Amino acid sequence: MLLLRTHALRRAAATPPRIASLLRSNSSSSISTPSEPPKVIFSGIQPTGIPHLGNYLGALRQWVKLQNEAAPNTTLLFSVVDLHAITIKQDASELARWRKEMLASLHAIGLEREKSIVFYQSTVAQHAELMWILSCNASMGYLSRMTQWKSKLALPSNTSPFDPSPNSKAALKLGLFSYPVLQAADILLYATTHVPVGEDQAQHLEFARQLAIGFNHTYAPDSESPLLLPPATILSPAKRVMSLTKPTNKMSKSDPDPKSRILITDSKDDIGRKFKSALTDSVAGVSYDREQRPGVSNLVDIMYHMDESVAESPDALARDMKDLSMRALKEKVADTVDEGLRDVRGRYEEVMGRSGGDEFLAEIAKDGSSKAREIAQRTMGNIRRALGME
Amino acid sequence: MLLLRTHALRRAAATPPRIASLLRSNSSSSISTPSEPPKVIFSGIQPTGIPHLGNYLGALRQWVKLQNEAAPNTTLLFSVVDLHAITIKQDASELARWRKEMLASLHAIGLEREKSIVFYQSTVAQHAELMWILSCNASMGYLSRMTQWKSKLALPSNTSPFDPSPNSKAALKLGLFSYPVLQAADILLYATTHVPVGEDQAQHLEFARQLAIGFNHTYAPDSESPLLLPPATILSPAKRVMSLTKPTNKMSKSDPDPKSRILITDSKDDIGRKFKSALTDSVAGVSYDREQRPGVSNLVDIMYHMDESVAESPDALARDMKDLSMRALKEKVADTVDEGLRDVRGRYEEVMGRSGGDEFLAEIAKDGSSKAREIAQRTMGNIRRALGME
Repeated sequence: MLLLRTHALRRAAATPPRIASLLRSNSSSSISTPSEPPKVIFSGIQPTGIPHLGNYLGALRQWVKLQNEAAPNTTLLFSVVDLHAITIKQDASELARWRKEMLASLHAIGLEREKSIVFYQSTVAQHAELMWILSCNASMGYLSRMTQWKSKLALPSNTSPFDPSPNSKAALKLGLFSYPVLQAADILLYATTHVPVGEDQAQHLEFARQLAIGFNHTYAPDSESPLLLPPATILSPAKRVMSLTKPTNKMSKSDPDPKSRILITDSKDDIGRKFKSALTDSVAGVSYDREQRPGVSNLVDIMYHMDESVAESPDALARDMKDLSMRALKEKVADTVDEGLRDVRGRYEEVMGRSGGDEFLAEIAKDGSSKAREIAQRTMGNIRRALGME
Repeated sequence: MLLLRTHALRRAAATPPRIASLLRSNSSSSISTPSEPPKVIFSGIQPTGIPHLGNYLGALRQWVKLQNEAAPNTTLLFSVVDLHAITIKQDASELARWRKEMLASLHAIGLEREKSIVFYQSTVAQHAELMWILSCNASMGYLSRMTQWKSKLALPSNTSPFDPSPNSKAALKLGLFSYPVLQAADILLYATTHVPVGEDQAQHLEFARQLAIGFNHTYAPDSESPLLLPPATILSPAKRVMSLTKPTNKMSKSDPDPKSRILITDSKDDIGRKFKSALTDSVAGVSYDREQRPGVSNLVDIMYHMDESVAESPDALARDMKDLSMRALKEKVADTVDEGLRDVRGRYEEVMGRSGGDEFLAEIAKDGSSKAREIAQRTMGNIRRALGME
């Protein structure tokens, strides 16, 4: 099974012209040949509106890279996972806007409907159908040992699903407890071979693999080709982009201060202003030390990840800039980010601004949904036959 | 809210020519008028193959009665709930056969596609879709207090979902724990106004009502018409049909002895033979006493329920037959049952025997599925809008 570790990917994740495929298991420098088996890449993102720099550098830019470097026999699916969003109470009009903004953003970053299947999860009913079927094979005990429902409710890690802390506002809902099964369905529905995820999701991927293996064992023990394909992980390099105002926290949508984050559609002025007010320190010059100088190091990290061609490492980049004042550093980072996001911003404004933009987005979603359904139906047909439901 | 209790229904459930509508809340003798609001009746049955007399007298015969007495503006949906069947491990070829036999049986008891929507649950994806959405609003605590998952695994009632008894073979699966939410989705999907259920399901109906009320409160607090309609219960009279061989146990599919139960398709000879070997006692004559004479009382009960026109009560019927020998009683009961099932058996044999029967059944299922989907889509459209998923 392919499991690229952070270190191995660090180089591979560099932006062009340094080209490396993330999908060669044998050698990161081999060239794709027609004899390689077809690949299916699936990933999802919650409809949280316009992504910030953390989303972009952490996942989205990698999606585009995967798309642009994919062999012709690779299928790419990227889903706005709105069914996952509702495990937490959402405001309906906000969710409607955020779904659309996320779809427009996926277009803006460079996903193209000719190459990638982009769709809203809730428009493909098979996700929920497979989720139920997998539910009947998912152990309650395994699920209770998952940690995310606890962290989402801010509960201590030893909390039982039936004993939420008296301090927590809401009792645990089934959806928040069971969503790793939906996530497994998301992936397994498309016979996904590779899933790019961050480290925080590695536990869920392993769960999906176990579910697939268990399901195959139960319903098709003698079959040569598995009913559900246990996917491999493409572990995304851990690019932790921190808040500009509180650089020991991750950059986050939920921070009430909009200056804490750069949105991928921010104007040159916005970007300049936000970096100008970024929290650094009073040490003279630039150096890279995430412990002692989190603010400065975050700026260096952002600049390095925006354009990895400029240096060998964040550390090297910091040394290159060691004599810069804070003000000069911030301007330099702002320019790099502005440049890196210029095309994205342009495409976003174009689709959201022009008349007919809504129809264009609806068309992307409809096209993606129908392509996704076609694959999903194949899987569900096999599953139904295996269960005796036809 | 309409809640007919067992006692009130006992009379109403009599077979024609004594006609009484189960669906009039004000008076059981009123005549249906066009001014009455439309009703939607939903019920489901697991695909357990050919039903036995317990299934028939407990639920299925009532379905036919509901159908035949329904006002023109009543919609009736009866589902073979195959998605529920897989909460317990099933053999695929057996499940395939059992689904079909159940569908043929629903046809055989007299459900007609012109009047009732009969369909396989798994062919209407909206059940699973709504299930997921309701999951996000269903409390884990409430679910853990449901009792059925414990009884299905034969666990003590104080068992925690994460602490199955070391004696139980399989750890609890999510599906068995969460299926009351799927059951709620089954009902709420069709804006069901009335659900005929046995007492053992009353807890789940109440759960569905609570889910609907909570959902409406959360997503449409100011709306005049509820997003999800909390259904009323039609509590089926508790007609406990007991095993012929162990009359203190309920008649059950899972009893390894086929002589313990009458199938609704059994031949006259089979019926005669099974009743002949029914366990009774050595007391002379017939009397009705479920405690002291469970075998004899079960025979009287079966005869009474098969044709309630013969006496005022099982007790009265037993008095009418007080001088009969066991043998004579058994013959009389067998004759009554044979007569009551003759048409059912005829229709079953006709559809399963003739060439083209499979196509006929497939056509029923397809037609029912497409009608059910049409209603389900309306509900899901409203739900999607309310959630901000469009």
